[in-house]
Amino acid sequence: MIDINKAIEALDWNKEPRGLYEPIEYTLASGGKRIRPTLALVAADAIVNGGLINGDAIDQTMPAALALEVFHNFTLLHDDVMDKAPVRRGRETVHVKWNDNTAILSGDQMLIEAYKLLSGVPADKLPQVLKWFNEMATAICEGQQMDVDFEHASQVSIDDYMLMIEKKTSVLLANAMRIGGYIAGATPAQQEALYQYGLHIGLAFQIQDDILDVYGDPKTFGKAIGGDICANKKTILLLTALEMADAESKAELLQWLMATDRNEEKIAGVTAIYTRLGVREACETIMEEHTAEALAQLDKLPQNSATESLRLLAEQLANRKS
Amino acid sequence: MIDINKAIEALDWNKEPRGLYEPIEYTLASGGKRIRPTLALVAADAIVNGGLINGDAIDQTMPAALALEVFHNFTLLHDDVMDKAPVRRGRETVHVKWNDNTAILSGDQMLIEAYKLLSGVPADKLPQVLKWFNEMATAICEGQQMDVDFEHASQVSIDDYMLMIEKKTSVLLANAMRIGGYIAGATPAQQEALYQYGLHIGLAFQIQDDILDVYGDPKTFGKAIGGDICANKKTILLLTALEMADAESKAELLQWLMATDRNEEKIAGVTAIYTRLGVREACETIMEEHTAEALAQLDKLPQNSATESLRLLAEQLANRKS
Repeated sequence: MIDINKAIEALDWNKEPRGLYEPIEYTLASGGKRIRPTLALVAADAIVNGGLINGDAIDQTMPAALALEVFHNFTLLHDDVMDKAPVRRGRETVHVKWNDNTAILSGDQMLIEAYKLLSGVPADKLPQVLKWFNEMATAICEGQQMDVDFEHASQVSIDDYMLMIEKKTSVLLANAMRIGGYIAGATPAQQEALYQYGLHIGLAFQIQDDILDVYGDPKTFGKAIGGDICANKKTILLLTALEMADAESKAELLQWLMATDRNEEKIAGVTAIYTRLGVREACETIMEEHTAEALAQLDKLPQNSATESLRLLAEQLANRKS
Repeated sequence: MIDINKAIEALDWNKEPRGLYEPIEYTLASGGKRIRPTLALVAADAIVNGGLINGDAIDQTMPAALALEVFHNFTLLHDDVMDKAPVRRGRETVHVKWNDNTAILSGDQMLIEAYKLLSGVPADKLPQVLKWFNEMATAICEGQQMDVDFEHASQVSIDDYMLMIEKKTSVLLANAMRIGGYIAGATPAQQEALYQYGLHIGLAFQIQDDILDVYGDPKTFGKAIGGDICANKKTILLLTALEMADAESKAELLQWLMATDRNEEKIAGVTAIYTRLGVREACETIMEEHTAEALAQLDKLPQNSATESLRLLAEQLANRKS
């Protein structure tokens, strides 16, 4: 497989004024799993039947793949300002290392850089790719706003939640797949299958994230267990619990939501309610449905080493411990 | 001429989540001179020889014209957060009426909306227009960063200053002209003339802005006289004065720069130095050179009602009092 990290490192940020470009360089050098550009390249590879390693297909897909990664990092940069997050990937966030204004302006420039990379898409494919990219970017901003709105909303349904994570997380994975495949020559039916694959692994991933926050193994899970419970975050577990609970359990749950000073007890108390109600199993079932849906999409694509990788990825995401 | 305001009002922001789109609607409804989209349309009109009022040329140019206006308003929205500006066009700024996070996220979405509008450019023209638009957007972020850097820089040359205002202000006007003309079918020589016209009226405009801040008539000038002097802003007047001054005047000027508590006296004192050194005349000469350069570009274009409007605009900008 192509080394996406090399392509990211090859981007040139040695430009003036330094105050604008240094934070961009810093952000992109901080690593991350590069899942989005990788998905775009694997999708292209699936369409050209594992022949991506040589020839034009890499060159043609790479600009969009990089645009997706730069775009994703732009969203992290601005999200960290809005969340006042001090650390990202083990390093100080840009607004801490520099300041808020730098994070805003360099973030803006990163978004523009994503579009600059996108303009390297072959001209005949550019209008469609730009349209999808714009729809994707819009969905992500809408998802972010919904997430903010949910904090203060008294009533959030599971459907609302699913729409929010679809916009905030899944649409980017879905478009990475679709754009990569489209540039490599996917038929409309293949484009749709790639899109749906990305959408459903994204949903499964996010649901698993919520589950691990409560039921993860502290030894393998990267962060502290129960963070979402302490923060009263409207995860799919909480929303499912509120839906499944009888009057008594619901009262008990709402009581815990008001407790803000007894975190250890709160985590234990809420987890006990979840376990009693079978919330974990209910959420795992939803997650498994999305994993199955993602896997089913792969049957509509050429069967080769790339689609095999996508199959493994979907299965790993569903079984991950961290 | 086409009513650009109607086209802006026709943009649909009645979308969910409201927290994302309301601030965009509010920002675009606050008016402004709509100079950038108007320039794009007049440039197109100049190329089709005043025939823009009917036919495809309007439809083809309008998406880019609107993209430029939405982009410009995005820069104002984020600039106001960074400058902590309370008021814009007589109304509360978005970060005051809502909050910083709303201004950041809705601003991001506005930038994306600009690209959405841009994707309406005819497909055969889109790659070039996107490339210019991206270069323009980059220049504006670079210019903004340079302006921030200048605040703390001990040494700023007039060349640095000219480059900063070119990037921050002029490149947008230049690209509005060039993009409008290109979509309407301008030859490469005409594209360049349109670009240079926009660039030089932008420079003339910004220099006149600096002059009016000191020498404007308080009755007709929109804001208080001397604001730049009080803020020690590195305007072309101050940089010219520092360059023209002998040792004695320079010492006197630097003395005033350190005074932060006697605004009325400071304005009078600095203005007296400017006047004694002939700074106003020197800056007016630079401004007039740019106006003349802009006018000279018009000779390279078809002579019609549109180029006549552009001639009047350049002359008015040079003689404006507010």
